[in-house]
Amino acid sequence: MQTYEFSAKGAYLKRMKGRNSVYLNGVQVDVATSPAFSGAIGCIEKYYDLQEEQSDIHCFKDGNQNAAISLLVPSTVEDLQRKRKSYKAVADISFGMLGRTPDFINAALATLYAHSKQLGSNPFANFSENMKAYYNYVKENNLFVGHGAINPQIDRSLPLGSQINEYAAVRIVSHDQKGIVVTGAKMIVTLAPIADELLIFNMPGLKPGDEDYAVSFALPIDYPGVKIICRKPMVKPVYHHFDHPLANAFDEIDAYLILNEVFIPWDKVFVFRDVDKSNLFYDKTFARNHTGHQGIVRGLSKAELLTGISIQLAKMLKLDGFINVQEKLGELTSYVELVKASIAWSEADATLSEEGVITPSISAIQAIRYNFPKMYETMVKTLQSLAAGSMLSTPHYQDFLNSDLSDLASSLSTGETDALSRTKLLNLAWDASGDGFGQRQLVYEFFHAGDPMRIAAGHFLNYDKSNMINMVDRVLLHDND
Amino acid sequence: MQTYEFSAKGAYLKRMKGRNSVYLNGVQVDVATSPAFSGAIGCIEKYYDLQEEQSDIHCFKDGNQNAAISLLVPSTVEDLQRKRKSYKAVADISFGMLGRTPDFINAALATLYAHSKQLGSNPFANFSENMKAYYNYVKENNLFVGHGAINPQIDRSLPLGSQINEYAAVRIVSHDQKGIVVTGAKMIVTLAPIADELLIFNMPGLKPGDEDYAVSFALPIDYPGVKIICRKPMVKPVYHHFDHPLANAFDEIDAYLILNEVFIPWDKVFVFRDVDKSNLFYDKTFARNHTGHQGIVRGLSKAELLTGISIQLAKMLKLDGFINVQEKLGELTSYVELVKASIAWSEADATLSEEGVITPSISAIQAIRYNFPKMYETMVKTLQSLAAGSMLSTPHYQDFLNSDLSDLASSLSTGETDALSRTKLLNLAWDASGDGFGQRQLVYEFFHAGDPMRIAAGHFLNYDKSNMINMVDRVLLHDND
Amino acid sequence: MQTYEFSAKGAYLKRMKGRNSVYLNGVQVDVATSPAFSGAIGCIEKYYDLQEEQSDIHCFKDGNQNAAISLLVPSTVEDLQRKRKSYKAVADISFGMLGRTPDFINAALATLYAHSKQLGSNPFANFSENMKAYYNYVKENNLFVGHGAINPQIDRSLPLGSQINEYAAVRIVSHDQKGIVVTGAKMIVTLAPIADELLIFNMPGLKPGDEDYAVSFALPIDYPGVKIICRKPMVKPVYHHFDHPLANAFDEIDAYLILNEVFIPWDKVFVFRDVDKSNLFYDKTFARNHTGHQGIVRGLSKAELLTGISIQLAKMLKLDGFINVQEKLGELTSYVELVKASIAWSEADATLSEEGVITPSISAIQAIRYNFPKMYETMVKTLQSLAAGSMLSTPHYQDFLNSDLSDLASSLSTGETDALSRTKLLNLAWDASGDGFGQRQLVYEFFHAGDPMRIAAGHFLNYDKSNMINMVDRVLLHDND
Amino acid sequence: MQTYEFSAKGAYLKRMKGRNSVYLNGVQVDVATSPAFSGAIGCIEKYYDLQEEQSDIHCFKDGNQNAAISLLVPSTVEDLQRKRKSYKAVADISFGMLGRTPDFINAALATLYAHSKQLGSNPFANFSENMKAYYNYVKENNLFVGHGAINPQIDRSLPLGSQINEYAAVRIVSHDQKGIVVTGAKMIVTLAPIADELLIFNMPGLKPGDEDYAVSFALPIDYPGVKIICRKPMVKPVYHHFDHPLANAFDEIDAYLILNEVFIPWDKVFVFRDVDKSNLFYDKTFARNHTGHQGIVRGLSKAELLTGISIQLAKMLKLDGFINVQEKLGELTSYVELVKASIAWSEADATLSEEGVITPSISAIQAIRYNFPKMYETMVKTLQSLAAGSMLSTPHYQDFLNSDLSDLASSLSTGETDALSRTKLLNLAWDASGDGFGQRQLVYEFFHAGDPMRIAAGHFLNYDKSNMINMVDRVLLHDND
Repeated sequence: MQTYEFSAKGAYLKRMKGRNSVYLNGVQVDVATSPAFSGAIGCIEKYYDLQEEQSDIHCFKDGNQNAAISLLVPSTVEDLQRKRKSYKAVADISFGMLGRTPDFINAALATLYAHSKQLGSNPFANFSENMKAYYNYVKENNLFVGHGAINPQIDRSLPLGSQINEYAAVRIVSHDQKGIVVTGAKMIVTLAPIADELLIFNMPGLKPGDEDYAVSFALPIDYPGVKIICRKPMVKPVYHHFDHPLANAFDEIDAYLILNEVFIPWDKVFVFRDVDKSNLFYDKTFARNHTGHQGIVRGLSKAELLTGISIQLAKMLKLDGFINVQEKLGELTSYVELVKASIAWSEADATLSEEGVITPSISAIQAIRYNFPKMYETMVKTLQSLAAGSMLSTPHYQDFLNSDLSDLASSLSTGETDALSRTKLLNLAWDASGDGFGQRQLVYEFFHAGDPMRIAAGHFLNYDKSNMINMVDRVLLHDND
Repeated sequence: MQTYEFSAKGAYLKRMKGRNSVYLNGVQVDVATSPAFSGAIGCIEKYYDLQEEQSDIHCFKDGNQNAAISLLVPSTVEDLQRKRKSYKAVADISFGMLGRTPDFINAALATLYAHSKQLGSNPFANFSENMKAYYNYVKENNLFVGHGAINPQIDRSLPLGSQINEYAAVRIVSHDQKGIVVTGAKMIVTLAPIADELLIFNMPGLKPGDEDYAVSFALPIDYPGVKIICRKPMVKPVYHHFDHPLANAFDEIDAYLILNEVFIPWDKVFVFRDVDKSNLFYDKTFARNHTGHQGIVRGLSKAELLTGISIQLAKMLKLDGFINVQEKLGELTSYVELVKASIAWSEADATLSEEGVITPSISAIQAIRYNFPKMYETMVKTLQSLAAGSMLSTPHYQDFLNSDLSDLASSLSTGETDALSRTKLLNLAWDASGDGFGQRQLVYEFFHAGDPMRIAAGHFLNYDKSNMINMVDRVLLHDND
Repeated sequence: MQTYEFSAKGAYLKRMKGRNSVYLNGVQVDVATSPAFSGAIGCIEKYYDLQEEQSDIHCFKDGNQNAAISLLVPSTVEDLQRKRKSYKAVADISFGMLGRTPDFINAALATLYAHSKQLGSNPFANFSENMKAYYNYVKENNLFVGHGAINPQIDRSLPLGSQINEYAAVRIVSHDQKGIVVTGAKMIVTLAPIADELLIFNMPGLKPGDEDYAVSFALPIDYPGVKIICRKPMVKPVYHHFDHPLANAFDEIDAYLILNEVFIPWDKVFVFRDVDKSNLFYDKTFARNHTGHQGIVRGLSKAELLTGISIQLAKMLKLDGFINVQEKLGELTSYVELVKASIAWSEADATLSEEGVITPSISAIQAIRYNFPKMYETMVKTLQSLAAGSMLSTPHYQDFLNSDLSDLASSLSTGETDALSRTKLLNLAWDASGDGFGQRQLVYEFFHAGDPMRIAAGHFLNYDKSNMINMVDRVLLHDND
Repeated sequence: MQTYEFSAKGAYLKRMKGRNSVYLNGVQVDVATSPAFSGAIGCIEKYYDLQEEQSDIHCFKDGNQNAAISLLVPSTVEDLQRKRKSYKAVADISFGMLGRTPDFINAALATLYAHSKQLGSNPFANFSENMKAYYNYVKENNLFVGHGAINPQIDRSLPLGSQINEYAAVRIVSHDQKGIVVTGAKMIVTLAPIADELLIFNMPGLKPGDEDYAVSFALPIDYPGVKIICRKPMVKPVYHHFDHPLANAFDEIDAYLILNEVFIPWDKVFVFRDVDKSNLFYDKTFARNHTGHQGIVRGLSKAELLTGISIQLAKMLKLDGFINVQEKLGELTSYVELVKASIAWSEADATLSEEGVITPSISAIQAIRYNFPKMYETMVKTLQSLAAGSMLSTPHYQDFLNSDLSDLASSLSTGETDALSRTKLLNLAWDASGDGFGQRQLVYEFFHAGDPMRIAAGHFLNYDKSNMINMVDRVLLHDND
């Protein structure tokens, strides 16, 4: 495998240079210098910095070397708590707005490594060993691995195998002794432009007949045939941070990934033409549990920020003395508390796999996962109802600097808050709730862990219902004559 | 103080005999024999039986004697967990439908005892010592103490002190060296007809000027001047358990309490003409935390039963293969899980008071308390949507026994469920969600811990918001030029 | 056909006597004298009385004779308005709580008559002529026709033709020159015990293979083999009207109908083994439009009553000065207004069929039909939130008469409302929202016009979407370079 | 008064030239040429064009001259219908996205003119005559009058008279024989930058003590001391219409208005230091009814567009065969229908004022006004749930023109829709629901007619409740023994 310089300070940024597969606004772009990526790249750099600055929190000892704690294979509840502490600090870099920081897929890789025997082998390759080797490679090189799992939404009424469009997903075109050739697409490959590699796989749900699409592999971004086409950025370079304090700092670009006859060597392949293996990849290896654990910890940061903005707005606009506003704010703080409770419970109710890996409770994680988007939506809506018209009419930063408009500052100050502080907070409210950045964050929460309907259905199907059913039996038995 | 026989098997029932202050359906009634109380009394007897049969769970060693574990003053998280285990088993007797089993007020008495110095003293009485003595008296006699806290809803636009109606709350009429005389009323004094004594107090919110009403005391049911007027019972004696499996087994009567110049000796008085003490009685002694802990554990039983009924209904009516029904059921199981998470978190995040009492987190408890009624309402609604018309048209038990109607049984059976089982489950669904019993349970969840608006407002006001506010400050500081 | 005495005063009640097919609480019962039916029978008698007392509103001239206006075949918008005026007055008898008064099926019969050619003929019978004759027969005898359309909920995962249970619906067993023989069941046959005849048909949705069930006919209640098994009554004979002002006056019993080899002569048959005709019976004849028109007018009465109760409660409990309570009440009055708007619009936007029948707009009717249950649920919930605990603790009527409890009346009076009036209003609130009667009314609104999901889906499928689609095309065309 | 050239083609645009009071992004800007206004100005030009091209719809004969139909003082229901037809065509120019087209305030001016006697007079001026003259002036010059009514949200806990900030609203500084001098601010003065004049007034709610703020007048944009500071524009000049089909065409800028010692001659003043007159200005003159009528007709266009987008999305993504998607779409079409019903009902239930003006029913208008924002929010949310991830990942228009990315077009086409059409529709979905433009439209619907809580409270307070209260009395009277 290719080798990267170990990620000491600056190593990550160096890796980003010279990449030529990324397209933004119609042109090929240098991610290392484009302003559209500077916010996100800055966050990833801080992620690596934390490993240096607080290695007790963010690293574990792997032999003599430090490795990212997110890659630790946890064997005790305390291990989970250590990982969670790091997840939270990483999430706090971006207030949870970056959904796919490196620890997300790392959490999956650790459990995929530990349960790699699920992946089996074929005459060309030992997929289990491939996964182990890949884990070590990522660990040693301290890479940033993103992932592509969602297929383009072309025709939701047909299974993959019946789709006509050859980019309906990533498809195996051919294979030989050296490797496989794939063509196709993945959508919403978040942060792909600035990741080192992508883990390509399918969410469960493939059916017999979908064999061509039943594939998983690791994809270095610079492989020939790879194109990463960014969605339009939320970053607004013509505006000052004052005007867009979130969008201009924390946009993680979602991208559309096109693979055109890309060759993948066997040692990077994890699933090959095997519907069952493709379907077990995410759940049976507990990857969903561990990424879900990271995900809801990250969600907590986001919930805290939005609740904090509402609290500060209510205070500034002198609304926080009204009982109905207090109720709305209390609803939000109650949600923050339920998220905390769910995280703690997912750890306290964890189980040990046969392989000795401690795994956060999927029932706890999916319970909050299903409810979190609704809670977050309420947060967005409460924010909007508090800032309302005020948030819709904030002047531009430059207006405050224009000497013609000196009365603007007087007119928007209150006894306690000057006009600039007032406006900055309202701008933050708009970015968090109303502008493209904030709404993308909302839509993202609803769908990034899969269709909410299926999350709930899965919760029901997988939940231990025995006690509840016994209760029904008991109450019915009261009738005993 | 009066002494009661220690509650060995049968002691409780014996205490219920001969009581003459209870009115039901317009007449004075013997609670020990009236069918309206047999269900609830049976549950309380089982509560006492559990202490005999599973004393390791339901008792603690108080010197050489066993005492009810709900009266344990907890000093460690493990103590809380022990208490919770007992609460749950007690709740399971009635599937959480009895909201005011003895452990509820016991949980309060333990913490009132431990923090009794809050109650102070006056020249007539040492209220702190009174509370300690009362706790010991309840413990030694293993009594069932109910409570009366809610004032009749006469005119919600006026404070107590300005109400004209002299029954607007419990009011001090006079006092002398021996004690105080009170007149007035409390509403929704649940289970009062079959409790040994009542703890009378006010929820916080009294204002200067309300001194006449600022009172708390213990009230034996048989004191002269006490009348307990039951609401119309949910029990339906003309129906078989088959037809009303919940109402006929688990109706805890709510009662209206009238006090007419009732004399209370000083040693039973805990607050006297002191608005501040009245207002701190419930919160500052952590009574809210500990009753809240019991309350949400009890809520869990109820949530489990209702979810179980929905699951069994969906299965019986062959609806559980539809993804939209699975989603609804998954929403319910996710709620059950969030309740479990909140209970665990309230214990894990408990704090130690200066007096060395471990206290479940009020933030965790009120977070779920605020959300639980909405969750429970969804449970009721889902149940109704599944059972729908079928639940509205079940025949009477006797119809199945009528030989003229032999085709009824054939017509209502499915391959897997015979007509009687089908009908019984639908009757349970109706009792749990649609009939008076089920709806009283729903309304009760909304209001039994106070106005939800105030619960949320209190959550906001009391929550530790520093971290969230810091986040807002941090994001605004990004703007540094 | 059998002849009935024309419904002069008393004729209806006379027809109810001697009926022997009705079972209640396990025994065969005389509907004319059983207290369970007295409320509903009283309402139907008032329905007939209105024809006498206000014939200008409730009758139309059919030749020289008066006939029920609900049977008028409307040819102008004014005709619709006349019918609506009568519907409203009939609904007001029971405040809309009787969902299946005679005008409901009459509204269908008028349009089935006018569009009867849809029903065609077969070698045994001319179904179109049968329908015309039946209409005249009902008109001349001024009968009360109920209907049975909903099949028992046995296994919702299978189509009718694959059900094993032979009572899964009404099934044709055999036929000969004289008529057909049917066996099977219908559920929620509301008011069947006190109707003269039932119109039996299926809602649309039968599939090829369901021919045995594709049948419609008129069923006199006293045909051999007919059994009507009532659900448990909401009427509570042991309680005074004071305690249950709605349940004891307006319970329309839902019944379970069993047919056991019932012979139906050909002249009462309207559909026979014809899936297409069965499926068009309700929609293509505009029966859904006209019953829907009656239905939503009736719903208006119900909405007005519930809103009125909330308004009076808020006033009595002095809650109506709070802005948040005013908002809740304003939400309810806004719903009442939207119902009125929809009724008016269904008439103003009516269309004329080829046969010259004016037909209320199904788009308007189904729009409010889909939303009405949610509005009604909000009404129930608002009522519950206002009456809350007070409604849960009302004493029995006899308590007020008990001289021992003289302080009860003082304790529950306010300056403006005496204790009896206060309690009566709270009892009404409970009956309307919380007790079995009120919840049955709620569930009934959700399902009596079919599964809400299908109502909405049908609205989308049938709506004229051309203008909306053109708008999308227009906005996209803005891009013209 | 100043005279303007009558608005023949081009007159309006000519008037926009040379204006120097408008600030955008920190600099003074020429609205006639700035791209930020070209969309909105284009819409207003089309508004004037319609008067030329379809004068039968958009004009009425005022003597020999045509005048804008929105200025017609309606005296019959047919007049209202004529006005409504014009409102709808005007709204369709921008699909309802421009909330303050000239017909909005014109609708108010017509009724203010007809009920001008409400405004009275003082020794300096006859306000009633001023209003009549102003109406004629606007009519003859065919002006575009915007309005400023909302005060900056400085401290919502204090009444105006107690605010410290002198810009808390528009305040009278001094007056003499010639006129008055005002200083202060208004927020969300929508379309102010491109209006001819503004009508300045307060919404009802002023209190004794607020006299300095109790003022109303007409304000030509170019009066000395007037500054209009635009919020940041939604228009995105760097993007093609393809990428932002709504934002780049229909942004109506909200502006912040600052008045600094602006002199207003008496003939432009309508209310002066008179709290009562200020409070009756909007309601008692029926201005709320007539602007509300225009407003909800405009809302209909918006609702139709959003519903249309959802329908087309569901079709394109092949989601419209799923019953749960059909239900969601049916919910939207039912809302469109309820809006139509409410408009028709507001006209059918109109009343005639003493002055002979026909006035749409405020109960009908406010009923839908209260519910419309919730309906619109559901439309936005449904749109988001359908377009979901696809909408978050659309490439830039230029990506499709880049020859490197030729496979992009193949990869995103379906059998029926090519990639460009697919992407354009998704861009439209995002602009309508997720990006700043769409969310501003949502927030705007919630608040532009006042705080929804107050709309509902007002509906309750003003509604004719007599029938509903009678019903409650009647049902209670059933109890007559």
